[in-house]
Amino acid sequence: MFGSDNQTGAHTYVMVAINTANQGRAPSYGSDEITVRAERLVKQTFETDDLDFYIVTSGSAANGLALASLCPRHGAVLCHSHAHIIADEGNGPEWFTGGARLIGVGQGNEKLQPRHLQAATTTYPKEFVHGPQIAAVSFTNLDENGQNYHPEEIKALAEIANANGWLLHCDGARFANAVIGTGASPAELSWKSGVDALSFGLTKNGALMAESFILFGDARKSAAKYLRKSTGQLISKHRFLAAQFVAMLEGKLWRELALHANQMALALGARFRALGIEIIGEIGGNEVFAKLPPEKAKELQARGISCYVWPPLGENVYRFVCSYATLDDDIAAIR
Amino acid sequence: MFGSDNQTGAHTYVMVAINTANQGRAPSYGSDEITVRAERLVKQTFETDDLDFYIVTSGSAANGLALASLCPRHGAVLCHSHAHIIADEGNGPEWFTGGARLIGVGQGNEKLQPRHLQAATTTYPKEFVHGPQIAAVSFTNLDENGQNYHPEEIKALAEIANANGWLLHCDGARFANAVIGTGASPAELSWKSGVDALSFGLTKNGALMAESFILFGDARKSAAKYLRKSTGQLISKHRFLAAQFVAMLEGKLWRELALHANQMALALGARFRALGIEIIGEIGGNEVFAKLPPEKAKELQARGISCYVWPPLGENVYRFVCSYATLDDDIAAIR
Amino acid sequence: MFGSDNQTGAHTYVMVAINTANQGRAPSYGSDEITVRAERLVKQTFETDDLDFYIVTSGSAANGLALASLCPRHGAVLCHSHAHIIADEGNGPEWFTGGARLIGVGQGNEKLQPRHLQAATTTYPKEFVHGPQIAAVSFTNLDENGQNYHPEEIKALAEIANANGWLLHCDGARFANAVIGTGASPAELSWKSGVDALSFGLTKNGALMAESFILFGDARKSAAKYLRKSTGQLISKHRFLAAQFVAMLEGKLWRELALHANQMALALGARFRALGIEIIGEIGGNEVFAKLPPEKAKELQARGISCYVWPPLGENVYRFVCSYATLDDDIAAIR
Amino acid sequence: MFGSDNQTGAHTYVMVAINTANQGRAPSYGSDEITVRAERLVKQTFETDDLDFYIVTSGSAANGLALASLCPRHGAVLCHSHAHIIADEGNGPEWFTGGARLIGVGQGNEKLQPRHLQAATTTYPKEFVHGPQIAAVSFTNLDENGQNYHPEEIKALAEIANANGWLLHCDGARFANAVIGTGASPAELSWKSGVDALSFGLTKNGALMAESFILFGDARKSAAKYLRKSTGQLISKHRFLAAQFVAMLEGKLWRELALHANQMALALGARFRALGIEIIGEIGGNEVFAKLPPEKAKELQARGISCYVWPPLGENVYRFVCSYATLDDDIAAIR
Repeated sequence: MFGSDNQTGAHTYVMVAINTANQGRAPSYGSDEITVRAERLVKQTFETDDLDFYIVTSGSAANGLALASLCPRHGAVLCHSHAHIIADEGNGPEWFTGGARLIGVGQGNEKLQPRHLQAATTTYPKEFVHGPQIAAVSFTNLDENGQNYHPEEIKALAEIANANGWLLHCDGARFANAVIGTGASPAELSWKSGVDALSFGLTKNGALMAESFILFGDARKSAAKYLRKSTGQLISKHRFLAAQFVAMLEGKLWRELALHANQMALALGARFRALGIEIIGEIGGNEVFAKLPPEKAKELQARGISCYVWPPLGENVYRFVCSYATLDDDIAAIR
Repeated sequence: MFGSDNQTGAHTYVMVAINTANQGRAPSYGSDEITVRAERLVKQTFETDDLDFYIVTSGSAANGLALASLCPRHGAVLCHSHAHIIADEGNGPEWFTGGARLIGVGQGNEKLQPRHLQAATTTYPKEFVHGPQIAAVSFTNLDENGQNYHPEEIKALAEIANANGWLLHCDGARFANAVIGTGASPAELSWKSGVDALSFGLTKNGALMAESFILFGDARKSAAKYLRKSTGQLISKHRFLAAQFVAMLEGKLWRELALHANQMALALGARFRALGIEIIGEIGGNEVFAKLPPEKAKELQARGISCYVWPPLGENVYRFVCSYATLDDDIAAIR
Repeated sequence: MFGSDNQTGAHTYVMVAINTANQGRAPSYGSDEITVRAERLVKQTFETDDLDFYIVTSGSAANGLALASLCPRHGAVLCHSHAHIIADEGNGPEWFTGGARLIGVGQGNEKLQPRHLQAATTTYPKEFVHGPQIAAVSFTNLDENGQNYHPEEIKALAEIANANGWLLHCDGARFANAVIGTGASPAELSWKSGVDALSFGLTKNGALMAESFILFGDARKSAAKYLRKSTGQLISKHRFLAAQFVAMLEGKLWRELALHANQMALALGARFRALGIEIIGEIGGNEVFAKLPPEKAKELQARGISCYVWPPLGENVYRFVCSYATLDDDIAAIR
Repeated sequence: MFGSDNQTGAHTYVMVAINTANQGRAPSYGSDEITVRAERLVKQTFETDDLDFYIVTSGSAANGLALASLCPRHGAVLCHSHAHIIADEGNGPEWFTGGARLIGVGQGNEKLQPRHLQAATTTYPKEFVHGPQIAAVSFTNLDENGQNYHPEEIKALAEIANANGWLLHCDGARFANAVIGTGASPAELSWKSGVDALSFGLTKNGALMAESFILFGDARKSAAKYLRKSTGQLISKHRFLAAQFVAMLEGKLWRELALHANQMALALGARFRALGIEIIGEIGGNEVFAKLPPEKAKELQARGISCYVWPPLGENVYRFVCSYATLDDDIAAIR
């Protein structure tokens, strides 16, 4: 029930869009009109035309290709020790980048901080040929511990990155939840705060399969077009993926769904607190991390309430993820 | 109209299956029941349990991962000079295999022959450390020139491959058309004839996105599970892809759709011949290659009849692809 | 003076061997008689014929190819956080292995311990497809902090590695110093204690360029022969590299040179202690790590005594490396 | 005797230089004075300061790193079908470039021609995302069939390359022989004619191990420095390699040795012709390709005269390579 937001299906409006896209013939590989429309909506959503938008089929592919667009194969990417890219994508980042190094810094639920980046400038000196050469920084928003980064936090990271010639990547598998959680606009959470590449995913938010990466400004000069093809991520019946972005972005469905998921998370958090159960960290989006007494965890699971144990935040901590499909009853089942 | 079979939408029954799969929650990443059912049907279709079935999102990914399962990164893959893997997937095979070499042999519409393989044993001697080390042979069925390989042809390739310690891959992006075209069973066109890995695609056949690769027998010992993950091809809402395989394989829809497409191709071929237009090679599936006088080509295109020029088969040759959606009217439009 | 043992030249006997090897023609790429002799001596030195010996041109290449022989490209290598392979070889390990992950554990001068490996089995569960898959463990002997691993320490690591299906690599850029420092035999420090692959380097020990990796037992089944070629490490005038191994191993010159270097290190350590300067960790070979008051460090450097600052061991710690060429006068210069 | 020029030892002056370099301590990894001097001499030899000079340990490494400096991993390199990089370096180019494609064109001893390049612009259209993207052209001078490219021939290739945005690489494993054979200067055979990267090898010419690659002009902006490190090609006791370049270039020894080798080849060619044996192609450097009647080949080999059979030039063709060490007696032995 709270296992993961990727265990839901797809929202009805997304399904309608997919069904509607199934009309007659259309050029393949993204040369169709629905793709053009999706791109138009992305540019509108992010308030700029200075971006390239690439649809792919998984969050790992989005992250891999975004990193490959920012970091050369002899480079390194600085990220949080518990980042999805370092913990949950196999050796994907190494493969997509052609051999770049991931360097994890920071522990627990402390977000990536300027001082982490500053420290790395000493540990991994620029142009020191023997050591890894940092080329990019990656943060996750909403992050793996359910917290969000506000524009000023992102700007602080971007400032140090820029000063060192590094580029900035945001893993936005739950970007919508961060948008709602921070109250900031998509633009403020990305290029306006110095993000060069954004993995923009809507699958967890309620799509069937709608992942993408967006390159802003100078990052558009990359070879992304060819990398996407060579990694098997240029899809033939592209319109069916594009249609999902249209469905989500057109009427701001993506915001509504994230708003619901975030509200459910807040309700869940209140519920836990009412039960005297400790919540770890802030609830920045649609995830709640609760420290459950072992017998409580057992009891919940016995009642079919799924959730994952979350070692990075300490013993007996469990992750509960809400989604567009979470019901009041689901929250009420926590008792 | 005849541009490519990937310019169609998806068959209604496939759409129904996708919509039906959208019920409640399900475990992600392929641990759901629809995936189990798809796997069951694949085993039934191929008449064996001794296979591993991996769903992916593109034909390039299927080919790349199949090759990566058969060929080490210091190896080479022998294929036809006009094979899709060497001509139309960017540097995908190199990327998926981690740097293996593709070696193209044969020209025009001559299929891959035993003598091509035999010649390669001399040109690329086994254990000659300075040269590429052939580890696999890949053929396409239906091939890029619309012809099919019969079981005895495949066995002849497999025999030489086996004698040299090479493994055999079949790119089956149009496998259904080859099944219908040859009248052989899926098993006869794969493991029973010595195929170790098959890219089994149903997207061109009428699915929305249903690509996969299948490893048979000893090839199952590969690291495919991890390779699929690290290349971003393990999909979270996996059931929606699996549902398409179920829809296609359950009632033999995949055969019916291919039968229709192949019949349309035969009708189209007859039509061309009736007009005095030369057909290049046999019509082994759903594709027709016609040598059009320049003025004829112009006229057809002016009337909105799309088709691709096909240089590998000579000047003025054009490819016409039929699909499950091709109508009698489409054929009649050729005049 | 104490900057690094790779700042020395080559020992006279090594030079004589190189000059002597320059007689007439010889088959290239390692098919010559001197290479056969070097291999014979390596087998004698390691007391077994069950090994493959590959000469290469740098320690990074030796490590990279040894790791590539043990770890698939979808795997991970566990090593100390300050290991040379993770800190000082650029992205070499990723490149040589084709994209494997390095995972650093442990801090400061604590050696790699069984509990580090044990903890990793929990953090990186076997067959958990989303996370890195540990395939090998790498330790350095003599390690980067000047300490050595005794056979029983190695066996303890090998035991856990074996229990988990991991293979064991030893970076032996200063293997000779570890042999002398522990008093154990080359065999005891390698295959007899469970080492599957050893980077066996003699350059720092007094050769001009004599690096290699050795695969023991089942590890010999790897594709090392082809990997060495494809990474540009199969050398044409191979005899000149092989001759250095012959010169070093034949009369046990390698032991004598290491013995001298180690004795100088002990003398240097005594000297520091006599001056009231703290030595960090044990002196397990030819390196001494001294905590120098800033003014002392400045004074030494002003007198032309080179040494490197060594942040992993704390502030104001400096590394002093002795070699076959270190003289009593060099030690006496520390005052 | 005529097997290969890499079966010789090293010229006495080179050995003297190596021995002389063995004086005291020197900074490692190329920060020493001999390396500075070698670089100075290379710039003088090529009549420009606008170059970067990287010493490596094998011709395959030089080629691999030069190509990696010119061609991105999603790109392709056009070369002759019998080029060393495609035929004799395993999968080296793929590995060094991170997965670029090699495309062989031309057959037999026809050199790479403008029309080959022109044809490729059609077969592999620019920005066609499905196909390989040509990024560089590589030719070999002296080529694999013993022929040389004159400046005007190189310029003709460069012109088409430039017009298409491709860069130009020259594999100069026998560059000295081409310099002598053409009578052109090193500058004329490289940057003055549009070469962006040159593999400049002196090992076959008489060094012990002296391989390098040189980047000219804009090509210097590449990441070569880091690529060399990550591929294990940054050598610690660098001065011993640099010393060989100094010995070769300082007194123009490299020209004298190549002159001798080339003259021997001409003498050998005359000898063959006098015996009524056909010579294939021009003798552009130090190699002769003779069509030997089977019984003649057998007889020569029985008398210990080594040479390689050379299938690319037809049946019964054998390659004879002369070197700095070839004697009049060696020629006379052909009878």
